[in-house]
Amino acid sequence: MNPQNNDCIFCKIIAGEIPSKFAYRDDDVAVFADINPAAPVHLLVVPIKHIASLTTMTDADALLVGKMVAAANKVAKEQGLAERGYRLTINCGEDGGQLVQHLHIHLLGGRPLKWEN
Amino acid sequence: MNPQNNDCIFCKIIAGEIPSKFAYRDDDVAVFADINPAAPVHLLVVPIKHIASLTTMTDADALLVGKMVAAANKVAKEQGLAERGYRLTINCGEDGGQLVQHLHIHLLGGRPLKWEN
Repeated sequence: MNPQNNDCIFCKIIAGEIPSKFAYRDDDVAVFADINPAAPVHLLVVPIKHIASLTTMTDADALLVGKMVAAANKVAKEQGLAERGYRLTINCGEDGGQLVQHLHIHLLGGRPLKWEN
Repeated sequence: MNPQNNDCIFCKIIAGEIPSKFAYRDDDVAVFADINPAAPVHLLVVPIKHIASLTTMTDADALLVGKMVAAANKVAKEQGLAERGYRLTINCGEDGGQLVQHLHIHLLGGRPLKWEN
């Protein structure tokens, strides 16, 4: 499998060019660890299809994005977070702090998370 | 329209029992201001259907949740956030800091947002 976008590190992870352990993977979605964790559990939920950002997501991608959230919930449950709770965050653009231009949901948990400040 | 869940403040807002101004509304999704804003733009994107939390979302809700994200993007664009960026966050349970038991996406923007700490 070749990366969909050769300039995208997440496409390279999905294609196996960069070795990674997947917490979840199906035809639409992959989940792997953030290399710079901000919480005891910090995973990234990405679409297999290269979508750069929320601003390039189309209405036709709605089901795919919903499947990303459903996959996040499944993995959160497997990680034992369902009872204590967790957070899903999508950063977009510079104000949002988006660092990789391939849409991703941060799944954060394992400690009480502070609110925006 | 009666609230779907009489104990739910968001169901009462959706039903018009609590007056609110909607930034967006269709048959599936409503968007209104957070009463305790954490950023210059702070809106809540909720499903019309009462879903308590990420942990009670089912796979059949995936399209609905994707439509919530699409609506958030639409409103973000209308609010002039598309270029500077923004953040979408779903809090779940106690560790996540979920305060209202009706699924909601926080749309945050209008300033550089800090990352988890």
